[in-house]
Amino acid sequence: MTSDMTADIGEEAAGLARRTSADLLRRIEDRLRSHLAAEHDVWAGVHERAAVPVDELSTLVASGGKRLRPAFCVAGYLAAGGDPGDPGIVAAGAALELLHVSALVHDDVLDDSSRRRGVPTVHTAHAELHADRGWQGESRRYGEGVALLVGDLALVYSEELMAQAPAAVVPEWNRLRSEVMIGQYLDVHAAAEFSVDPKGSRLIARIKSGRYTIHRPLVVGANAAGRDDLAPAFEEYGEAVGEAFQLRDDLLDAFGDSADTGKPTGLDFTQHKMTLLLGWAMQRDDHIHGLITEPGHTSEEVRRRLLDTGVPADVERHIAHLVERGCKAIADAPLEAVWRGELAAMARRVAYRNA
Amino acid sequence: MTSDMTADIGEEAAGLARRTSADLLRRIEDRLRSHLAAEHDVWAGVHERAAVPVDELSTLVASGGKRLRPAFCVAGYLAAGGDPGDPGIVAAGAALELLHVSALVHDDVLDDSSRRRGVPTVHTAHAELHADRGWQGESRRYGEGVALLVGDLALVYSEELMAQAPAAVVPEWNRLRSEVMIGQYLDVHAAAEFSVDPKGSRLIARIKSGRYTIHRPLVVGANAAGRDDLAPAFEEYGEAVGEAFQLRDDLLDAFGDSADTGKPTGLDFTQHKMTLLLGWAMQRDDHIHGLITEPGHTSEEVRRRLLDTGVPADVERHIAHLVERGCKAIADAPLEAVWRGELAAMARRVAYRNA
Repeated sequence: MTSDMTADIGEEAAGLARRTSADLLRRIEDRLRSHLAAEHDVWAGVHERAAVPVDELSTLVASGGKRLRPAFCVAGYLAAGGDPGDPGIVAAGAALELLHVSALVHDDVLDDSSRRRGVPTVHTAHAELHADRGWQGESRRYGEGVALLVGDLALVYSEELMAQAPAAVVPEWNRLRSEVMIGQYLDVHAAAEFSVDPKGSRLIARIKSGRYTIHRPLVVGANAAGRDDLAPAFEEYGEAVGEAFQLRDDLLDAFGDSADTGKPTGLDFTQHKMTLLLGWAMQRDDHIHGLITEPGHTSEEVRRRLLDTGVPADVERHIAHLVERGCKAIADAPLEAVWRGELAAMARRVAYRNA
Repeated sequence: MTSDMTADIGEEAAGLARRTSADLLRRIEDRLRSHLAAEHDVWAGVHERAAVPVDELSTLVASGGKRLRPAFCVAGYLAAGGDPGDPGIVAAGAALELLHVSALVHDDVLDDSSRRRGVPTVHTAHAELHADRGWQGESRRYGEGVALLVGDLALVYSEELMAQAPAAVVPEWNRLRSEVMIGQYLDVHAAAEFSVDPKGSRLIARIKSGRYTIHRPLVVGANAAGRDDLAPAFEEYGEAVGEAFQLRDDLLDAFGDSADTGKPTGLDFTQHKMTLLLGWAMQRDDHIHGLITEPGHTSEEVRRRLLDTGVPADVERHIAHLVERGCKAIADAPLEAVWRGELAAMARRVAYRNA
């Protein structure tokens, strides 16, 4: 066989892998929508307002999002040789996305974010409704209360869906969820204390972002395909690419364009998020702490001072190194060959995204 | 056989049923504690603060509570002839209690309650800690954020445990959880609107309290025992006794003793909860609305005015009628005979409790 022919066969296999994956992701999308539509019908029949929390979830699902967790779950499944016709993987992917929707709605309360995916956040919209109507009680508590319940409902639907995935996913799924809740707690606590602790920041980035977004969705997919031997390679890949993902998040928050990200930039500064980027910069320049915590400074001042430390450039280099490490981790893993290339491409996409 | 002998045999069977049930409830208690202890150990090994959310749950579980949902689940299981040696029912009972713990922690944020089971609520305790330490950000948001995550974690653990129950419980479990979230939303919304709507109040009482506390836990128990034929009788019993449970709740909030209930009385007034009690009273006396919503009136004034309407006495009569209806619903159901008497006794206990 000539090398041209090998390349052609390689291209063809890659094309097929991408189409299979895209088809599964479309079915996950349909599953999300049909689950919420069926719940809407149940509750709309009970009381005229009872479907409101369900409809909030439908709006969020329809408003976009990168669907990274379903994508990595499907990749893990197909790379492990899973049968694309099995409905269990569709349920698992939809469950991961609804868990994420739940985390977003609750996160927006924790951070008091006003916009998400370009639309007002649930707690903001309902607090405004409360104020407009002149209802009893405090508008803020009402809005946050509704968001709390909407997020709880998404978590419940997520469980309903994951219960339809193969039972082999259960241990990883259990770990993933408690990890994200505990990681969020550590994050909120670190933001409150706001002391420089790169070891702590790294742990938080690892358990609340990397594992949740990449490592564990991959393993859930592999386990759904009945392959628990892939866990070590996916862990190594996921930890590296997950850290790259989180570092890009830090950079986008500091230097990105809110028209791309759909949320305001500089939120990490105003919310005193002890990100890896900030932690490293504050180790080099102890004036940054004051720029963030003392009143009267703009995000622009923080941004300029951050650039002066040279940390953003170092972070870019570190991201490149992490992507390389991630690709190396899967280079020799017992995966479907075509999926080595696809996973490498996915690593680059999350590490070099602009939103 | 003489009637004395029949009575003796009946007494003996009832004693055995009670011991079996008490033994299962003890095992549920052990399961709750061992699950949380194991999670504590996992997280304490990861980071010195990572076990804090788990420990909050342990404190709440240890601080008391009536364990009504596990009790009805066990009753439904044993009444349906379930094998008391099966670990699945222990997991199901523990899952129901952790779902309740999650609802309590989130509820206390929705209602801004300061105490629960005689101890400070999670959001209050963490807001105080934040203020004492002079941490960054707003103490209220920090405290409520921690409570949000602690409640989420309880919901996750509840799912982990229910996944160990027989698969036959899944449809009822799904319905139970989405119902409680939607019921809570309708409740929060009704409190905000605060317009008299006895039909709406009754729906809310039914879906967020009665079904969640009595009807669905009984059916989860019966389904765990492989008996789906008991659902209609348990529904009829649960709807009636559940409404009695909620009406007693309304009366205890208005006229109870906070030393018994472990939480302040009159909360429904200050939070503008549109309870059945208040809804009926407001239909008879339209001054009560103003006493509650306009500043400058005490709970004592509301209480006196409520008594003058005669509604509390009517509610007592209605509770008696509901208990009777509940007992009638199971009188001819295909249950283990001794459990008819036990369920009747449980109906009286929840309807005439003082806390």
